[in-house]
Amino acid sequence: MAEHANLRIKLPVVCIVLEVILIILFGALVEYDEHTSANKWTSPNHTDYENEFYYRYPSFQDVHVMIFVGFGFLMTFLQRYGFSSVGFNFLIAAFSLQWATLMQGFVHGLHHGKIQVGVLSMINADFCTGSVLISFGAVLGKTSPVQLLIMAVFEVTLFAINEHILLVFLHAKDAGGSMTIHTFGAYFGLMVTRVLYRENLEKSKSKNSSVYHSDIFAMIGTIFLWMFWPSFNSAITAHGDAQHRTVLNTYYSLASCTLATFAFSALVNHEGKLDMVHIQNAALAGGVAVGTAGEMMLTPFGSMIVGFLAGTISVLGYKYLSPILESKLKIQDTCGVHNLHGMPGVLGAIVGIVTAAVANEQTYGKGMARVFDHIDDVNFTASSQAGMQAASLGVTLGIALLGGLIVGFILKLPIYGAPPDSQCFEDAIYWEVPGENAESGELCAVKSEETDKLNG
Amino acid sequence: MAEHANLRIKLPVVCIVLEVILIILFGALVEYDEHTSANKWTSPNHTDYENEFYYRYPSFQDVHVMIFVGFGFLMTFLQRYGFSSVGFNFLIAAFSLQWATLMQGFVHGLHHGKIQVGVLSMINADFCTGSVLISFGAVLGKTSPVQLLIMAVFEVTLFAINEHILLVFLHAKDAGGSMTIHTFGAYFGLMVTRVLYRENLEKSKSKNSSVYHSDIFAMIGTIFLWMFWPSFNSAITAHGDAQHRTVLNTYYSLASCTLATFAFSALVNHEGKLDMVHIQNAALAGGVAVGTAGEMMLTPFGSMIVGFLAGTISVLGYKYLSPILESKLKIQDTCGVHNLHGMPGVLGAIVGIVTAAVANEQTYGKGMARVFDHIDDVNFTASSQAGMQAASLGVTLGIALLGGLIVGFILKLPIYGAPPDSQCFEDAIYWEVPGENAESGELCAVKSEETDKLNG
Amino acid sequence: MAEHANLRIKLPVVCIVLEVILIILFGALVEYDEHTSANKWTSPNHTDYENEFYYRYPSFQDVHVMIFVGFGFLMTFLQRYGFSSVGFNFLIAAFSLQWATLMQGFVHGLHHGKIQVGVLSMINADFCTGSVLISFGAVLGKTSPVQLLIMAVFEVTLFAINEHILLVFLHAKDAGGSMTIHTFGAYFGLMVTRVLYRENLEKSKSKNSSVYHSDIFAMIGTIFLWMFWPSFNSAITAHGDAQHRTVLNTYYSLASCTLATFAFSALVNHEGKLDMVHIQNAALAGGVAVGTAGEMMLTPFGSMIVGFLAGTISVLGYKYLSPILESKLKIQDTCGVHNLHGMPGVLGAIVGIVTAAVANEQTYGKGMARVFDHIDDVNFTASSQAGMQAASLGVTLGIALLGGLIVGFILKLPIYGAPPDSQCFEDAIYWEVPGENAESGELCAVKSEETDKLNG
Repeated sequence: MAEHANLRIKLPVVCIVLEVILIILFGALVEYDEHTSANKWTSPNHTDYENEFYYRYPSFQDVHVMIFVGFGFLMTFLQRYGFSSVGFNFLIAAFSLQWATLMQGFVHGLHHGKIQVGVLSMINADFCTGSVLISFGAVLGKTSPVQLLIMAVFEVTLFAINEHILLVFLHAKDAGGSMTIHTFGAYFGLMVTRVLYRENLEKSKSKNSSVYHSDIFAMIGTIFLWMFWPSFNSAITAHGDAQHRTVLNTYYSLASCTLATFAFSALVNHEGKLDMVHIQNAALAGGVAVGTAGEMMLTPFGSMIVGFLAGTISVLGYKYLSPILESKLKIQDTCGVHNLHGMPGVLGAIVGIVTAAVANEQTYGKGMARVFDHIDDVNFTASSQAGMQAASLGVTLGIALLGGLIVGFILKLPIYGAPPDSQCFEDAIYWEVPGENAESGELCAVKSEETDKLNG
Repeated sequence: MAEHANLRIKLPVVCIVLEVILIILFGALVEYDEHTSANKWTSPNHTDYENEFYYRYPSFQDVHVMIFVGFGFLMTFLQRYGFSSVGFNFLIAAFSLQWATLMQGFVHGLHHGKIQVGVLSMINADFCTGSVLISFGAVLGKTSPVQLLIMAVFEVTLFAINEHILLVFLHAKDAGGSMTIHTFGAYFGLMVTRVLYRENLEKSKSKNSSVYHSDIFAMIGTIFLWMFWPSFNSAITAHGDAQHRTVLNTYYSLASCTLATFAFSALVNHEGKLDMVHIQNAALAGGVAVGTAGEMMLTPFGSMIVGFLAGTISVLGYKYLSPILESKLKIQDTCGVHNLHGMPGVLGAIVGIVTAAVANEQTYGKGMARVFDHIDDVNFTASSQAGMQAASLGVTLGIALLGGLIVGFILKLPIYGAPPDSQCFEDAIYWEVPGENAESGELCAVKSEETDKLNG
Repeated sequence: MAEHANLRIKLPVVCIVLEVILIILFGALVEYDEHTSANKWTSPNHTDYENEFYYRYPSFQDVHVMIFVGFGFLMTFLQRYGFSSVGFNFLIAAFSLQWATLMQGFVHGLHHGKIQVGVLSMINADFCTGSVLISFGAVLGKTSPVQLLIMAVFEVTLFAINEHILLVFLHAKDAGGSMTIHTFGAYFGLMVTRVLYRENLEKSKSKNSSVYHSDIFAMIGTIFLWMFWPSFNSAITAHGDAQHRTVLNTYYSLASCTLATFAFSALVNHEGKLDMVHIQNAALAGGVAVGTAGEMMLTPFGSMIVGFLAGTISVLGYKYLSPILESKLKIQDTCGVHNLHGMPGVLGAIVGIVTAAVANEQTYGKGMARVFDHIDDVNFTASSQAGMQAASLGVTLGIALLGGLIVGFILKLPIYGAPPDSQCFEDAIYWEVPGENAESGELCAVKSEETDKLNG
């Protein structure tokens, strides 16, 4: 097997060096926030149920499940890449959440020279990790774990910068990350996979597909993502009605999206048969598309329309757009992240612009300033908010595409142990893969014995 | 393959028409409740931690997992029906929860012409969906997704009516739905499958069984149902002690039920071998059987007795009753929902009657009126409550059986693309199913080449 | 198949007798605590959100998932032992949590002759169950379910005694159970498997390994354990900052551990290939190793160092120590619990000693007495606490090893239907195992027909 893909030195060195750097920086910069420190929490004698933990931890755990089970298993659909899908997802997520804690803390500003951590920073770190995993979906099967870790180093950094520009400079709202997470992750990943274009990828064509059970494993990922998406979109909104409303909007958007997905999946197949790729992916687009407006007064009605549109464009994207992107633009997008995160993310940004533009005191009451933090500022109206949302989409696309371009070229260097064209989508290049089971083994043995006898 | 089962037009039309109707009705009728609206929540300045969200959302998410992962994977035990099991479960659940929001809101009464939604309506919609999925279990493998959606349209409606009669007219208690969800769903589904009886179902006999890995996939469903059943039974009880107590009762009932299941599964097998069908299903009967009395002062002791009985009758049902139901009554109950939801549901109703009958102030203290809302009414005693519980069981059985009969005949019309007898329990009729994996493929190729050579 | 392994009488008798004893004892001894009783909760008119349920139930559910899905699926890595792994895990956990409720309640002291139950007792019972499941991992594949139940009867009892000595007599802190759960469970199990040593276990060698899909099933267990470990370690700590901080420490420890695991897994393989056994297990050692100190002011920095060490020793243990334990000490440790729970548990105990020793008012403020309950007592200093922690590790090892020795000999009696050497790691001895799927079956049939023809 490809000698240069032997990671015996590369992977340990990269992992250990990165982790040591993380530990040193954590030692120098990170401290408990006032909700996690024994000292700070108890000094003014809070009531324990006011601790942020009880408002956020159930949501955090749902987000955590989406990151590790959701993304991890969603990508196990490939027949011979299950170990890598769930395993590399695990590795780069474990790295990214640590690195994101530092980058987000650093970019968003230190408190007396320190980064303070608690359940909110954990959710934000998981969110940033989600963005990296979206990009991972675009390059799945064609990259080494070393490449993925290097990608994560850069992507997390750019994510934190983009997020800071949007949320702080532009006053944008994007609690569920239609822009910061999905649009960013998708277009960054698409640009990386464009730069890493492999002309002879058809050499691994036979492995770039699913088998029966791998598709069922992937449904574990799909369903957990689908169920917990309401928690994802609401995890960092304001307390009370905002979290509650975001959950509701996301729930209805996803339900509506699912019906659209089944409808169009059957419609675009000449025998009317459903395609697992659509069900596994497009049914989730409804969650992406209310990532920005979910906390606003979008209404269940509005959410369902958005979800329906998202499911529709996602299925059509898988069927008609992805083949064109590959053949014309040389974008080999393994998981079709453009259809699940790219287009629905942009749709979500647009929905956010529109929903912000029509916001008014009559609908929101005193809640107006809780949803749009800057709306009480001088000269900052609902239209200003909408304008900022639009600017945010542009900034995100710009940073994602430019960042992906540069990082793509960095990852093109032939030093990371990337798999050869013939060994893409194949676990055996990076993993000890077990043989078939004993009984089948025996069966084969018997058979070949028989055949030998016959030949003899 | 069967031409009339081509769903290229039927499925999209049904999905899109239903979703458009839903969207229009949501636009006309649905609004945020006071816990989800930015305006309503902030006007009296609530404290955020009093928002219903924090009391219910973790329970809701557990229920949600049961509906989508629990029911979905439980049914993947069939060797060639995994895509349909988890996929159609996904589709009809996504539809039903939207339709249930409307039907339950409509039947239970509008507020100023509007249906108000929040976490409680989400839980109730998921509950109603659970009932549809139970019926799905009875007809699994023998119905098209179009048929299932039509079934859901009617079943959700009847569910809402029955639930309203029980909870409002009869003042029944049934927080975990032994009657409203399990008994209703099971007997409705059994009646439907009776009407849809297929004389020549043995043509698909070879597919109506499990393989090794499909049984393990099914255990994912079983275990998630089992773990989260305490949340299911407690999700809509009163706050505080009631939720807490219901969880505890369900936890012990299920644990006891599991031991009974293993015991009787080994006992009824002449080699003493355990049967996966029992473990996957009967071990859950303990949750069903405390669905009514779980919020009452049933005590862990009482719960364990109920759980033990439930597990026992469920295993015996699978072993001895199901074959009789099929041969004598022509009820082809694919998942054995009669054993998991039917009999244990009726048992749960009876346990509710008895537990209500013996309720008294000494045991409940001031909590009496929190558990039995009408107990302070004139002439409404514990015995009245017990009587109402008994009447509720009768009403539920009546509506379920009659409703199932009528809906069964509606579903018998030859217009829904139902599978032919020889293609039941087979994904390939409705799904693009991938081929076997590359390596096995090669193996086969090599083998047949050898055989050719030998033959030649 | 081995006649003496027919469990038709043995298993039902043991299950029913145990459950009947449990029911009787629950009837005599168990009552609702003040947070679950309708009477007790409502008499002083608490505010519902103060009910312990809302502080603990989400954590409990995460722990519950770890016990039933986490441990259950982690052990499905064996190719032909998936039914038993997840099924026997289910059985002995369902038994143990009931028995643990009694034993812990009894040992820790009755209230007016009664054991009071609520969400805290449920978490503690699940914790005790976790310890039994760790021991199960050591003997996996080589024991009958009857043996496992008998083991649980004794182990739960010894667990409760050891836990009581540590927490009450020695004033030890061990919220996440590095000592009480992991060290105890591991060394108890290792001693049992030592006593049950099978000289001719290589007769089942071909089954004592994984296949491709069984390794992916096992990753379901791994990932759920990994994600919810923060909830495990924090489930019974003090409210507020303590729960919050423990979550944070565990999160970082696990993330760091995961990078160490990937690094050393690649490093110890001569082709640099990753080993699924390491990823499935060693990546979790970081959770074990902060089980004692997680609630202390360990800091993220400290947690990451601990996690890194834990992952490292765990991988090295799997690679170099396990083969030696088997060949020299005759310890056949199927799941390598010594590497995942044994050594990391001891490491966790040591980290607890050190962290307690350096605790001071400056760091903890008023939180000092909340973390170390006895620190305000006369002459009880941080050093005293450290000493007590050290004594606790010694006591735990002593009770675990001695207890395991005795229980091992009890389990060696030839009356429990243990599998013969040639049938270890094989579901078919205790389960009805389905045949291969229809299509393969046909394939085989065709083949053997052809071969017959050729032979003829």
